[in-house]
Amino acid sequence: MIFIDACFGKKTPYTPVWMMRQAGRYLPQYLKVREKAGSFLHLCKNPESAAEVTLQPVDILGVDAAILFSDILVVPLEMGMDLRFSTGEGPIFSNPLMTKADLDKLQINEAAERLEYVYKAIRIIRSKLSSDKALIGFCGAPWTLATYMIEGSGTKTYGKVKKLLYSNPSFLHGVLAKVTEVLKLYLEMQIKSGVNAVQIFDSWASALEEKAFFEFSWRYIQDICSFLKSKYPDVPIIVFPKGISGYLDKIEGEFDVFGVDWSTPIELAKEKLGNRYVLQGNMEPTRLYSKRAIDEGVEHIVNVMQNKRHIFNLGHGILPDVSVENAKYFINSVHEKTKI
Amino acid sequence: MIFIDACFGKKTPYTPVWMMRQAGRYLPQYLKVREKAGSFLHLCKNPESAAEVTLQPVDILGVDAAILFSDILVVPLEMGMDLRFSTGEGPIFSNPLMTKADLDKLQINEAAERLEYVYKAIRIIRSKLSSDKALIGFCGAPWTLATYMIEGSGTKTYGKVKKLLYSNPSFLHGVLAKVTEVLKLYLEMQIKSGVNAVQIFDSWASALEEKAFFEFSWRYIQDICSFLKSKYPDVPIIVFPKGISGYLDKIEGEFDVFGVDWSTPIELAKEKLGNRYVLQGNMEPTRLYSKRAIDEGVEHIVNVMQNKRHIFNLGHGILPDVSVENAKYFINSVHEKTKI
Repeated sequence: MIFIDACFGKKTPYTPVWMMRQAGRYLPQYLKVREKAGSFLHLCKNPESAAEVTLQPVDILGVDAAILFSDILVVPLEMGMDLRFSTGEGPIFSNPLMTKADLDKLQINEAAERLEYVYKAIRIIRSKLSSDKALIGFCGAPWTLATYMIEGSGTKTYGKVKKLLYSNPSFLHGVLAKVTEVLKLYLEMQIKSGVNAVQIFDSWASALEEKAFFEFSWRYIQDICSFLKSKYPDVPIIVFPKGISGYLDKIEGEFDVFGVDWSTPIELAKEKLGNRYVLQGNMEPTRLYSKRAIDEGVEHIVNVMQNKRHIFNLGHGILPDVSVENAKYFINSVHEKTKI
Repeated sequence: MIFIDACFGKKTPYTPVWMMRQAGRYLPQYLKVREKAGSFLHLCKNPESAAEVTLQPVDILGVDAAILFSDILVVPLEMGMDLRFSTGEGPIFSNPLMTKADLDKLQINEAAERLEYVYKAIRIIRSKLSSDKALIGFCGAPWTLATYMIEGSGTKTYGKVKKLLYSNPSFLHGVLAKVTEVLKLYLEMQIKSGVNAVQIFDSWASALEEKAFFEFSWRYIQDICSFLKSKYPDVPIIVFPKGISGYLDKIEGEFDVFGVDWSTPIELAKEKLGNRYVLQGNMEPTRLYSKRAIDEGVEHIVNVMQNKRHIFNLGHGILPDVSVENAKYFINSVHEKTKI
């Protein structure tokens, strides 16, 4: 698979490309399945429907990898937390984690087992996906998941989790360690079910100062990476900690690909990490509003990366109001402009 | 004034400190005046009340500078746009800028004149403020204001303004140029009314890629800086473009102090800018939840900056749920730990 070769820094006939949130609302075909499922969470929990929307962008756009359709929060949900997605407000946990008693109630092995609907979706996808296309599994980073579990919802200020970080760091470490254990089992089961690569999303890495990032986020990500690499060295690991461009030179660990968010200049990422890791990204998502902006963005990244040690992607998820025509134009443009 | 000396890189007996949003909701005294005023916008427009809340943190906390209480959006308001602040949703312009006709209706000189309530507040504050304390005036950067004017409200994706940026950049430049002209007059009138320094807030700098930042934001900020510096070289200018740590080395222009947001490691800002500009910032605001975290944060920044070419501040506004006791502790801690 071209995508997997590229993850390991091998030469490929062109630079592979996929898009974060490529199975999403900009696709009318997605909206149809989503509507039939009744709710976002029902869609996540229905293996047939999840498989269907996972495969859509491969068929419609010709991306080089499918990414499992799911949500990072199914993990705390199946650990025992009550989760709902409210329209407009996003995800809400009705009983956020506050005490050690709350934490003790959460389960590890049972959670990994209850996520069977994800593994089933993977088996269906892999059975239908063309053998030259990769399937990417994923999870949220322990820090990002713990933040949701403690805040109870999205947050601008991270007030609750930061108070804990300063007043009771050992409790926070307890949460992170427990989530980490589930994620190891979860990603292992994803691999056993058929994913060819995994990506760890740390959407809220930028909520932490440098030192706190390494203490409360990166070490847990690396714990997962070491576990997976010791057992599945051939499965590439992509990490995507967002908004940490101030200290990229300090990043190191057992992973293969570093996802570059669009606020980080690709030149900077190449300088600081490009010799050590394959880079993924990082086109600015609103460029997909305009074909001229797509051309400029693709050309710039191709000029910097020179088709080496690079996987094309957006620097954030595709926006719901991008036209399918422009999304296709982006994928084609990458393939054409990077052909050897 | 110690604060002004520090802005120009002169040696001071201790490192001066103030906090963004120091006249704000964490202070019970502020809430009282705010309630009496009836609404946030009424408070901005009432010179006596605005002066009162501006002075509160100087009296209560002992900060080294007062910052004018106002809002960056009074500028588009007085240019002729309809603005309201809705509870929970933030600012809303009922008729966002869409066409050249919308733009042509907006006023320049009349806007600067209608902002008389701000100048009056400044005169009152300066008449009451101790002569060793600085008064900081401010405005939003043209890019940040234009984004609000075009989006009509806060935004996560900047969809409307980005569509314009790619499809009709000359219109966007027209908006930015017009706003810039008002801001020159506005800051000049603030200086004439008695402010001792000005800060230009570019809260949404991070919405732009590097190249676009210089084209659509920085050049307009610099247009304002050059105008002010040619007439008022003794008034320090502080710039605060948020979230641009990826290309700090490219920043240059006619200003005195660079505000460092907390996501940028202070070591990085010192390395890239510290020889050329005085730095302001950048303590992580949630550290004010805990005295131990305050101690650690202050000590770290003092260790890096060594009391040289530095003004202490938070790396973002003070949060509404910080206790006044901890805010005081922070201010005292800076004064004590930086005393020569």
